[in-house]
Amino acid sequence: GAAPAVHAQGAPTIRWRLASSFPKALDTIFGAADVFSKTVSEATGGKFTISVHAGGELMPAFGVVDGVQQGTVECAHTAPYYFFGKDDTFAIDCAIPFGLNSRQMTAWMYEGNGMKLLREFYKPYNIVNFPMGNTGAQMGGWYRKEIRSLADIKGLKMRIGGFGGKVLSAIGGVPQNIPGGEIYQALEKGTIDATEWVGPYDDEKLGFVKVAKHYYYPGWWEGGPQLSLYVNQKAYDGLPAEYKAILAAAASHAHIDMQAKYDAKNPAALKRLVSAGAKLHQFDKSIMTAAYQAAMALYSDLSAKNPAWKKVYEDYAAFRDEQHLWFRFTEAGFDNFMQSGRFATTKAAPKKK
Amino acid sequence: GAAPAVHAQGAPTIRWRLASSFPKALDTIFGAADVFSKTVSEATGGKFTISVHAGGELMPAFGVVDGVQQGTVECAHTAPYYFFGKDDTFAIDCAIPFGLNSRQMTAWMYEGNGMKLLREFYKPYNIVNFPMGNTGAQMGGWYRKEIRSLADIKGLKMRIGGFGGKVLSAIGGVPQNIPGGEIYQALEKGTIDATEWVGPYDDEKLGFVKVAKHYYYPGWWEGGPQLSLYVNQKAYDGLPAEYKAILAAAASHAHIDMQAKYDAKNPAALKRLVSAGAKLHQFDKSIMTAAYQAAMALYSDLSAKNPAWKKVYEDYAAFRDEQHLWFRFTEAGFDNFMQSGRFATTKAAPKKK
Repeated sequence: GAAPAVHAQGAPTIRWRLASSFPKALDTIFGAADVFSKTVSEATGGKFTISVHAGGELMPAFGVVDGVQQGTVECAHTAPYYFFGKDDTFAIDCAIPFGLNSRQMTAWMYEGNGMKLLREFYKPYNIVNFPMGNTGAQMGGWYRKEIRSLADIKGLKMRIGGFGGKVLSAIGGVPQNIPGGEIYQALEKGTIDATEWVGPYDDEKLGFVKVAKHYYYPGWWEGGPQLSLYVNQKAYDGLPAEYKAILAAAASHAHIDMQAKYDAKNPAALKRLVSAGAKLHQFDKSIMTAAYQAAMALYSDLSAKNPAWKKVYEDYAAFRDEQHLWFRFTEAGFDNFMQSGRFATTKAAPKKK
Repeated sequence: GAAPAVHAQGAPTIRWRLASSFPKALDTIFGAADVFSKTVSEATGGKFTISVHAGGELMPAFGVVDGVQQGTVECAHTAPYYFFGKDDTFAIDCAIPFGLNSRQMTAWMYEGNGMKLLREFYKPYNIVNFPMGNTGAQMGGWYRKEIRSLADIKGLKMRIGGFGGKVLSAIGGVPQNIPGGEIYQALEKGTIDATEWVGPYDDEKLGFVKVAKHYYYPGWWEGGPQLSLYVNQKAYDGLPAEYKAILAAAASHAHIDMQAKYDAKNPAALKRLVSAGAKLHQFDKSIMTAAYQAAMALYSDLSAKNPAWKKVYEDYAAFRDEQHLWFRFTEAGFDNFMQSGRFATTKAAPKKK
């Protein structure tokens, strides 16, 4: 439908509700919706307000796609890979194993074909999507025992969210779906052997270090998970052009600010976790390689079966290959030098030679 | 001054001018100001418009700090390290050798103390600053001859912009200041031995590959140069609260979009450059280490001499050390696996095992 003209008397008063899939306790990931809503309100002098509701408040955390599709709420903030049961293509809008990192995902959305292709994909769901946050590469989770080789993955009962469980399963693991509030107890009792969550800052809140000391990296199934703002198409179409522009810019602001929050908060949290006994380990390359091969086989199968996946994935995969090829030179060259441990021991400037 | 109340009849009409330090031909870096201006205009229904002027159009490219300070223009878009001659502290708002990468710089500005400290620093210049763009880690430039060791740096005449020349000079190089339009000829004639510019996408336009084939990385003096929007304090104070919020969100949008443009455009440009004969080399670690030590000695000297530098740098350096410590685990673990060359040879998915 056409947007109503803005009256000369001023902009219209609009009240929306946003259903988040996250609890308020996750101040980083939930907080992005607050940053968005505050920006929209300030930019419109309080005329366009969006009330933010935690997961479960208006609808179940995983009910937000239905909620936006049916217009029960005007918008939602979620991790699209929760919805791969509806269509695996949802996962590409968030994270798939061995995919894009945070910056690359943003590049694909803003300046590649990502936004265009996903807007097409979301049409039947009455969703207009905007990138709104990224956690950065997640950690690979907490394990009661060390994982030395692929043999240790066989039969491993692991709580793993989203699409990554498909690949874990393909390399012999047993993915478990357990709500956030129950993971700690399951891990303590040994009902599960391992769990992943997000990264140091969020993981610390759930106390996993007390019951599973081995903390692995990288989270190869989530190299840069993007969160999305879903807006109901009809509600969006009803906005004046000014509010559409404000909504998009506010989403960009919240997008960048969420990654900044994680980046600023994770280092100190990691130090506290290590002080509390966390033992950091890097996944063995044999595990990474097996998982990589299983992931590529899965994507190939999905492309054969699902035209929607094929269309979006092919563009995503081509972009991914180019990105990782380019990033290996100057970005990695700079980062690897800076991360070579030099700083850990040279707080003071070294003497002149 | 207090912001005027917004009249019930609607928002006020405001016309600003933005002086860029860049030529229009740099569609990525110059383009960020256009993206910003377009967003502000759309978000206000054309009531708040900002005309964007290329470097030299209203004032010299390097005159924009004076222009904003004196109120000749309401705002400017520039690379703050151009102004280290006024105070070395300017460089920290952009890039200093062995500093933060793009994502880390954004984290320091948005969620560390970066914005707060720099706003204080800029007060005497009547500047309110906003991060507005980042190029990502730059390449280390074009060299007529291979640079195998520190000995090859001695006496090397290199065009290098900004603050990095100080460190090049400390390790024996001879930094040259040459306007963009004259670099090619100087390099062709051998008046200079090398030049750095930005990265593949921008470098390609200047044609350096034809006269200096050795293309080095990483650009250790620019691991994530940030561009800034400078707004004249009085002009800013005169905006209604809505316009202030719109201005900040539009700057965030342009900030993220500029990095996305570089990331999306660099890979194909690098391939074209390699096809045209560019030979990629990584700087030897002995050169990196010498430059690193010279940089740390320089920062220590500046901290002893300049209280403004000391205040901002100490916070920046502590943040940098924590960031690189954290990024080495899951971010680097993920990126390094993805960049290990796997993708270069496996366009098609491998067969299932």
